Amino acid sequence: MSFIKIPVKGMCDILPGEMRLRQRLLSDIKSAYARYGFEEIETPVMEHIENLTSKQGGENEKLIFKVMKRGAELERARQSGAELADLGMRYDLTVPLARYYANNCSKLLSPFKAMQIAPVWRADNPQKGRFRQFMQCDIDILGDGTNFAEIELVTATANMLTQIFKDVNIPSLTVHINDRRILVAAALKHGFKQDDVPTVLISLDKLDKIGFDGVENELISKGFAQNTVKNYLDAYRFLQSDVTCRDFCATISDCLDSQVEGNLSEIIECCRSSVCEKVKIKFDPTLVRGMGYYTGPIFEISIDGYSFSVAGGGRYDEMIEKFSNVKTNAVGFSIGFERIVTILKDFSSQELKLCEGGVAFIIEKGVDMQRKMQAFKDAQVLREQGKTVTVQPMKKNVKFQLAELEKSGFTEFRKIYRD
Amino acid sequence: MSFIKIPVKGMCDILPGEMRLRQRLLSDIKSAYARYGFEEIETPVMEHIENLTSKQGGENEKLIFKVMKRGAELERARQSGAELADLGMRYDLTVPLARYYANNCSKLLSPFKAMQIAPVWRADNPQKGRFRQFMQCDIDILGDGTNFAEIELVTATANMLTQIFKDVNIPSLTVHINDRRILVAAALKHGFKQDDVPTVLISLDKLDKIGFDGVENELISKGFAQNTVKNYLDAYRFLQSDVTCRDFCATISDCLDSQVEGNLSEIIECCRSSVCEKVKIKFDPTLVRGMGYYTGPIFEISIDGYSFSVAGGGRYDEMIEKFSNVKTNAVGFSIGFERIVTILKDFSSQELKLCEGGVAFIIEKGVDMQRKMQAFKDAQVLREQGKTVTVQPMKKNVKFQLAELEKSGFTEFRKIYRD
Repeated sequence: MSFIKIPVKGMCDILPGEMRLRQRLLSDIKSAYARYGFEEIETPVMEHIENLTSKQGGENEKLIFKVMKRGAELERARQSGAELADLGMRYDLTVPLARYYANNCSKLLSPFKAMQIAPVWRADNPQKGRFRQFMQCDIDILGDGTNFAEIELVTATANMLTQIFKDVNIPSLTVHINDRRILVAAALKHGFKQDDVPTVLISLDKLDKIGFDGVENELISKGFAQNTVKNYLDAYRFLQSDVTCRDFCATISDCLDSQVEGNLSEIIECCRSSVCEKVKIKFDPTLVRGMGYYTGPIFEISIDGYSFSVAGGGRYDEMIEKFSNVKTNAVGFSIGFERIVTILKDFSSQELKLCEGGVAFIIEKGVDMQRKMQAFKDAQVLREQGKTVTVQPMKKNVKFQLAELEKSGFTEFRKIYRD
Repeated sequence: MSFIKIPVKGMCDILPGEMRLRQRLLSDIKSAYARYGFEEIETPVMEHIENLTSKQGGENEKLIFKVMKRGAELERARQSGAELADLGMRYDLTVPLARYYANNCSKLLSPFKAMQIAPVWRADNPQKGRFRQFMQCDIDILGDGTNFAEIELVTATANMLTQIFKDVNIPSLTVHINDRRILVAAALKHGFKQDDVPTVLISLDKLDKIGFDGVENELISKGFAQNTVKNYLDAYRFLQSDVTCRDFCATISDCLDSQVEGNLSEIIECCRSSVCEKVKIKFDPTLVRGMGYYTGPIFEISIDGYSFSVAGGGRYDEMIEKFSNVKTNAVGFSIGFERIVTILKDFSSQELKLCEGGVAFIIEKGVDMQRKMQAFKDAQVLREQGKTVTVQPMKKNVKFQLAELEKSGFTEFRKIYRD
């Protein structure tokens, strides 16, 4: 019988060279975040299917890989026509974190600064260039209702990214900051009804891709009055690109809680003073962020000159309550690990090697045992000195064998021939 | 709506303290194996269900978490009564490695020294104290038909374990070594038929748990002749504990390929000369190893004074061929990561802290923005000096707040009060 040797659709085998790049990146991210006091945690890859299909995850809920019940329970479900899956693969790290915090908060610091670096799964269409298994890298602060949480998250992520991109000549970064409540207020101000706001924001979120005319047409085709749509979009269309949070909020002040502007302006000022000079902090009233669970400030980081974002997050003060029945403040920031790997691969000219200055023992067939033993002993001594050492049989084409090892970083060869 | 806050049955949330222990262990294992030239690889957590249910995995195949088909394909399968799952969670790292090597071998060194540290899933009964998601840590050498592969694997693993256990006063380790072909020859020598050998070995494998009398009763109850069983077991029962491979093989030489003994004796001698002095290398003719795919030498490592093993492996020269149709030599060694974590937790008296000598800024409510900005700036400067720093709001019970932070390793507190 012959098996299938390619991996499952949309998922990848990772070769050693890329693995080294990923491991170095992981270690850089972890040590940068650790200096901000974030603690690494881990949750199982599977969650109860009920937790994943609760409308918190938006579109991602349609993309769940479901895991079947087992044994007698599967049989019962089959016969009764009940749901056959009881578990699902997580599609993000936020739902598992909310469950984790509800389950363990008595054993955690408060506020709790969590770091999670782990794979998630979405049965997305791989033709879009997306993977079905990919790494996410999130930091979250739970149990802090002040804007220190936002400031810590934005500063940590912007400075960490700057450090990671330092060696590969990436231009500067921009952090876009907004607040869901400002988006809502602007929509109400221009005559949309409260219930229609989510629908309006879904269209506004496409501004980057389809432009003002595209958004206008979409909103009109959704049935909103032409005049309302035009006035609403003009409020964004004719804004100066460096509009301040204070000035923008002044135009919608009758629809906005007065504390929202002060809170966001403080975040912006404090971030500006603590990020490195390559990072711009920009109030961006058109930033939406897709997920419906955000309740306050939201943020995104883009690389200047590129259209995509490399990180995104915001405050979601209402999610953990659904697990614990206790109101718990929460803010999170997630970086696009796979995108950063792609960028680093594009910008780095050289692959990381297996070793630098390794030693290879190459032993011909038929060498007697005493000399083999000596070779393994010698290899061990070198390893204890911290060297990378390999022992392997001599091939017919020794020249090719040495050339391959040399490419991997081995520089010293001990060839042992039979007498 | 309220969600389920405990994790899925048999799977764990990992708290920060344990996470630090696991991360340090992972990093120690990786750097030790890297010195032997092993390269880290990664495969997706899911495999084609066909690859997982091919009888290579023995009992583990009954424990697969199956992943359902999606969309139209699921609908078609439902209507036609076909298999509803197209994917499964891997139950070990050997099947994925064989697929990986078949898929990528042209891009890999030969011989290829692979290291995999990753979770696997088995729907085992968690009441046995087993987890349903647990880490495995494997090294394998592919494409080496000589016994250098066995020697490298055993030396690397025994020395790595010794180093890991060094700080926690673990007594010495014993590597048990045998060869499947010696097991087969001994069974044939005492009158069992070739076809019955697998059944006989399943019983012999229980020797540790049920003793000679237990194995004897089981074999007789399976229908084998009492006399055959008695003679067969006596050959093991009355052996001296330090019997050499050569002496044991001499008793079954008419049923054994003459090269097997020389090959295994060489492995034993070379390992003895390259492992550190705390490790004993022992020929153990009763060692079986459950997996049916082993074809040659097999090995297991136990901690002296404990009944369980912490690592096991062997040669499996016939598995990769099933994916690639090309005969490929392969030897692997797998350590029980979760067991080692448990041992380290039992033996270490102190938990690893979040930081050593961290700085915490504690800011009272109502402090003006200028002073907040200054605090975040100061925090940033300390972080750039490599310190762990956190900024958080002052709680009503500051004393308790500081005590908690102190337990986590913070030693310097900058309290900022409102004027």
